[in-house]
Amino acid sequence: MVNSLKQQLAILGSTGSIGRQTLQVVRNLTGRFNVVALAAGQNLELFSQQIAEFQPKFISYQSKKNASLANHNCKLLSLEEIAAHPEVDTVVIATSGKAGLCATLAAVKTGKKVAIANKEPLVMAGEIITREAKLSGAKILPIDSEHSAIWQCLNGEPQPPQRIILTASGGSFRNYSQEQLLAVMPQQALKHPSWQMGKKVTIDSATLMNKGLEIMEARWLFDIPLEKIDVIIHPQSIIHSMVEFADGSYKAQLSFPDMRLPIQYALTYPERVSNSELPKLDWNKIKELTFAPPDYKKFPCLEIAIKAAKVGGTGPTVLCAADEVAVELFLQESIKFNDIARLVERVLQEHQTVPHPTLDDILAADNWAREKATELSIKAKTW
Amino acid sequence: MVNSLKQQLAILGSTGSIGRQTLQVVRNLTGRFNVVALAAGQNLELFSQQIAEFQPKFISYQSKKNASLANHNCKLLSLEEIAAHPEVDTVVIATSGKAGLCATLAAVKTGKKVAIANKEPLVMAGEIITREAKLSGAKILPIDSEHSAIWQCLNGEPQPPQRIILTASGGSFRNYSQEQLLAVMPQQALKHPSWQMGKKVTIDSATLMNKGLEIMEARWLFDIPLEKIDVIIHPQSIIHSMVEFADGSYKAQLSFPDMRLPIQYALTYPERVSNSELPKLDWNKIKELTFAPPDYKKFPCLEIAIKAAKVGGTGPTVLCAADEVAVELFLQESIKFNDIARLVERVLQEHQTVPHPTLDDILAADNWAREKATELSIKAKTW
Repeated sequence: MVNSLKQQLAILGSTGSIGRQTLQVVRNLTGRFNVVALAAGQNLELFSQQIAEFQPKFISYQSKKNASLANHNCKLLSLEEIAAHPEVDTVVIATSGKAGLCATLAAVKTGKKVAIANKEPLVMAGEIITREAKLSGAKILPIDSEHSAIWQCLNGEPQPPQRIILTASGGSFRNYSQEQLLAVMPQQALKHPSWQMGKKVTIDSATLMNKGLEIMEARWLFDIPLEKIDVIIHPQSIIHSMVEFADGSYKAQLSFPDMRLPIQYALTYPERVSNSELPKLDWNKIKELTFAPPDYKKFPCLEIAIKAAKVGGTGPTVLCAADEVAVELFLQESIKFNDIARLVERVLQEHQTVPHPTLDDILAADNWAREKATELSIKAKTW
Repeated sequence: MVNSLKQQLAILGSTGSIGRQTLQVVRNLTGRFNVVALAAGQNLELFSQQIAEFQPKFISYQSKKNASLANHNCKLLSLEEIAAHPEVDTVVIATSGKAGLCATLAAVKTGKKVAIANKEPLVMAGEIITREAKLSGAKILPIDSEHSAIWQCLNGEPQPPQRIILTASGGSFRNYSQEQLLAVMPQQALKHPSWQMGKKVTIDSATLMNKGLEIMEARWLFDIPLEKIDVIIHPQSIIHSMVEFADGSYKAQLSFPDMRLPIQYALTYPERVSNSELPKLDWNKIKELTFAPPDYKKFPCLEIAIKAAKVGGTGPTVLCAADEVAVELFLQESIKFNDIARLVERVLQEHQTVPHPTLDDILAADNWAREKATELSIKAKTW
């Protein structure tokens, strides 16, 4: 029997970094949530443990090795079926890359509360997703720390923001020279100075591509023109973003950099709930918060992303797809760190943008870009 | 004929720093306000100019030299009559020291919107003022930059704050040694590093007494226990205060330090209005925001104020009154900078606190403390 006082959660991407942290929040805030559905990719060992602990009714997974899940008494559904299921109130999109796109759309179309950590669905199909949300009444709630910050700062403000300033830690290589960047290896790039995150996001942070994707995410989440979104480097990752209002007043949201806070806020909004497991800021230890403009030369991905955002249409999809391939190739040591930007830029150059794309246009552009990126990476010398 | 679309303003203390800046905002935001009443203290030359420009229906002033105002066609009322007048919507309490106490109470009792810059009324009679506001439905809106910041951060939050952190510039002598503080002269103390303010507030900033008064102001404005209010030194005066919520998330309000912004926000709330005259933050120039704990030893006024706040009753009134006398004596070079704290502390030691005082108790305590402070200052050697 469904307990109607509890929020009925579906967590898509439960074995990833955001998924695991979402389940930590569920454990900490006892009595608030019922995990109705879990979906994972390849990590079936952890997935099996999660299923045993949370006893979801519905599951989904990508892996073909499903033997280990045979003992569990749950119904196997597709990601989209879970996202749209009437027994689900809130869908946590904790998938990575484009994996969450169709499920996000399914959740939005069925008017769910959609807590979204996965940037790509909004970057690729922000126009479609926000239009569908308006039609269905779905609430899209950000989990990304920057967007959670902006959302918190906009609380109770009757007017749209004058400007949004996304803060960026600057990633692992903020102080590296151009020469040092040439020699960067995956293991170095995977060590983020302030955040514990998944591999893809950590590399995207190091290239600043992540901040470019966040600009597009902010554009759709807050219905704000691109030219009103700025980026500032703030290495301490304590101010998670800022909003400027019409009168020149700013609000900033600050906290210890831990993803469980924005995850929890998206789940308990508008309420704020005490959680002793969350690390707190200690103002006796915070001596300074520093700021600097981003270095577009050393980190060309940010400018490439802004350019793709301005082009619009299928441009951002191609950017995402090419970046997903490029990051994977870098992690496999098939291309160098600086090649990520070069490869993405080349794929974008070859793309014929489709304006106001349908979902089919987006999926086709995604396929095309992945193939093109792979093809170009093989003949790397000709870039 | 009254234009009902315009906000009908009474500005008490119109020739002081906050009063003049309020009139600048009125000039900038044309068509929004009608200045129904102005009240001043001694500066009749400026007052006469203000009357000529804003043509208020009602005026009030303290000075006995009233000849220069004879030409103006306005009705002379008491401060309290203006504050309670039915043609007034909004009363700006821009008076200094205890001067605004009775007028604040009159405005609150008649259910006005009360935009308050003057700390002392709330510090002295916060319990009475907030009780009366609840009965009448009056809105008390802060103008003090720190309290405006807190108010802005609380916008749209359904729960009370977990903690308030008042930022303090640290005043003119933040980096002075104990020895240097002994030799401070009024002209040095009147140069505030980041704010343009009246004399009394500027000296109170230098002693940190101002921050002590703000703790009490915050307590009443936001109905928060004293132990949930902290102070942090932030010399750049860009973060004007912060609020921590139950989940450990903070919001901060930031802006260029200019009192016209909080004045304007109190007048236009909940709307935010573009005002090209207000200086804006330039993030290309802001390299760092720094923080440090306050030095209670070098600036004992802060601890004295916190102690008086904890004692409550007529304690805060005695603190305010003794401080007003002490600051005046310092400005006249009758006592030294460090004597301000010593004199206030001595007066408090001799006071028999009346708990839950009536307005009469408060006015009596105020009188007693002024006399006691004056008396003690004469026999300064015996402190």
